[in-house]
Amino acid sequence: MTKVTPWDVSGKLDYNKLIKDFGVKSIGKLPKQFTDNILFKRGTIFAERDFKHIIEAVENKKPFIMLTGLMPSGRFHIGHALIAKQMIFYQSLGAKIYIAVADIEAYNTRGKTLEELREIAIEEYILNYIALGLKPENVEIYFQSQRSQNANKASAYYRLQNQLSAHITFNEFKAVYGEVTPGKMVSALLQVSDILHPNLPEFEAKQIPIIVPVGIDQDPHIRITRDLAKRFKGAKFGPVCSTYNKFMPGLKGGKMSSSDPYSHIALTETPKEAKKKINKYAFSGGRETVEEHRKKGGNPDVDVSFQYLRMMFEEDDVKLAQIEKDYRSGKLLSGELKAILIEKMSTFLEGHHKKREKARSQLSKFIK
Amino acid sequence: MTKVTPWDVSGKLDYNKLIKDFGVKSIGKLPKQFTDNILFKRGTIFAERDFKHIIEAVENKKPFIMLTGLMPSGRFHIGHALIAKQMIFYQSLGAKIYIAVADIEAYNTRGKTLEELREIAIEEYILNYIALGLKPENVEIYFQSQRSQNANKASAYYRLQNQLSAHITFNEFKAVYGEVTPGKMVSALLQVSDILHPNLPEFEAKQIPIIVPVGIDQDPHIRITRDLAKRFKGAKFGPVCSTYNKFMPGLKGGKMSSSDPYSHIALTETPKEAKKKINKYAFSGGRETVEEHRKKGGNPDVDVSFQYLRMMFEEDDVKLAQIEKDYRSGKLLSGELKAILIEKMSTFLEGHHKKREKARSQLSKFIK
Repeated sequence: MTKVTPWDVSGKLDYNKLIKDFGVKSIGKLPKQFTDNILFKRGTIFAERDFKHIIEAVENKKPFIMLTGLMPSGRFHIGHALIAKQMIFYQSLGAKIYIAVADIEAYNTRGKTLEELREIAIEEYILNYIALGLKPENVEIYFQSQRSQNANKASAYYRLQNQLSAHITFNEFKAVYGEVTPGKMVSALLQVSDILHPNLPEFEAKQIPIIVPVGIDQDPHIRITRDLAKRFKGAKFGPVCSTYNKFMPGLKGGKMSSSDPYSHIALTETPKEAKKKINKYAFSGGRETVEEHRKKGGNPDVDVSFQYLRMMFEEDDVKLAQIEKDYRSGKLLSGELKAILIEKMSTFLEGHHKKREKARSQLSKFIK
Repeated sequence: MTKVTPWDVSGKLDYNKLIKDFGVKSIGKLPKQFTDNILFKRGTIFAERDFKHIIEAVENKKPFIMLTGLMPSGRFHIGHALIAKQMIFYQSLGAKIYIAVADIEAYNTRGKTLEELREIAIEEYILNYIALGLKPENVEIYFQSQRSQNANKASAYYRLQNQLSAHITFNEFKAVYGEVTPGKMVSALLQVSDILHPNLPEFEAKQIPIIVPVGIDQDPHIRITRDLAKRFKGAKFGPVCSTYNKFMPGLKGGKMSSSDPYSHIALTETPKEAKKKINKYAFSGGRETVEEHRKKGGNPDVDVSFQYLRMMFEEDDVKLAQIEKDYRSGKLLSGELKAILIEKMSTFLEGHHKKREKARSQLSKFIK
């Protein structure tokens, strides 16, 4: 059975069905700034809510905000990089970037101390964001447990969380999230405040559209946020817009998970480790034998190495098309396809590790 | 049926039964500092939890905190003055006073704007506290919606509220409060943070005992607070102590309520209005006719005027005993008893109104 909630994604995903079930829109025609981006042009970002406001802001060079949250748990892997790459993309388009470190949510649902969570957030997430290209200009990274060094801003953020609780019922929470606990409910309210607070008078103080790029499993948060934005009379918010990306498949097929090291490539792994994992675990769309593969060809649609190339590691459309063609025809063997990914991955990881070490000295420009 | 929850008090109250039901302790032997106080000596404060820590602090001149919350709704009446008088009493004993304006709770449960609630808090509560004798030294008055002008303090207070949610279940909330809504649950968590946060490192940073004087209906909050203080590992709190006062009866008998002007005397009423109300509405323990009263005597135990004298307006034990004796014997008529209260009340209100106008210029010493 397929199950998609913010706490659990399982089963086989039919994205067309999800679009219908969740009531989101397929991504329509986009201007060049977007279709040049690998995630848009390859359909990895496949659906949206009210994205027109963001397109309009980009086309007319009007201000907009991108907000994302990070849950400091486990290792930062290539699946996480999907969101990071969008963050950096929107920054290049002129967005102001808000990054919420969901340490309160992690504390409430995972039982680590805030100190441990801070360390994970910095080592695994923020250093990797910087290494991936996040610039310090026009970025606000904050911890849910300490929103701001400015008391008026801090209070405004938590005040909004508290006030929002008056505008929602338990049944609505249950309808959206399934079973909830006080800790999850409070975290959900804080997440709504994360998305809405940039438009409060204490922050941007304008009704600026905000884009929240998420996996489709996070849409319940978006729905609740949009509903609460309408109900809450105390402030005027800009449009809450969202896009939805497909999940990057796990190395063995199935789900990519932080807690299962054989389901992902972490951005702190050595090229050697990554090579070993890809060779040993990457789910292949190839045939049982070389003879059969040569004759019938492989299936790139289910081949994890090909999917990683398509989603992230081969930007060049011509090269990717050639790989796909050769694999489908049987000319390219599974081992050879893996070798292409390994080559790309090694180059990426080597460069990334150097950038990540340099990023450490930049940290103070990002976190106060 | 008697019902006592933080949201509803109804029915006839048997305080001995409440002591048993709630698992609190009767007030025991007290040192002179306490028995000199009208509320303690007359048994209006009738029960406690862990009060020994406060007695010990007073006797050994060690620091302690008194915290109370005010719900900014409706007019400040003589029932509210019961808590205000304790606040001023504890200040005279050396306590640091924390006063939480529960504007978030009022917003979440009563649907007024924060601006309206701020005005009510100042006009009805804080000005009256000052007029009743609250001194600006060693007092922190704060609004739940804006805890502090110091960002570290503000965040610490809301962070604690958020973290506490991880340590309680919905069923516990329901067992203590009956049916709850998200707004009530969030308010209850904020109230726990109100009581516990003074001992956080960002505030007093010591494990100082804290006394929270409340009506017995507020004990569920105290129970939840004490439980959460034990469960929460992130900080060490001092003992959470409480005392319970009996309710001041409403003018007509029954409950005193802000929303029913004929059930209370407000501290902003003129002596003339108060006189009219007492004469017209005050429930009397007297007999149907003067003859019967002279013969059988009145019942001071149910006479509201006598109760007001006993609880608040006649400090002199000898005079009160004489009034009681004369009323019980039939020598003192109901109208005469009312006249004694009216005389006391008029003197009090006249003096209070002058003090309240002077208090306005003091306000900036109390609220930043």
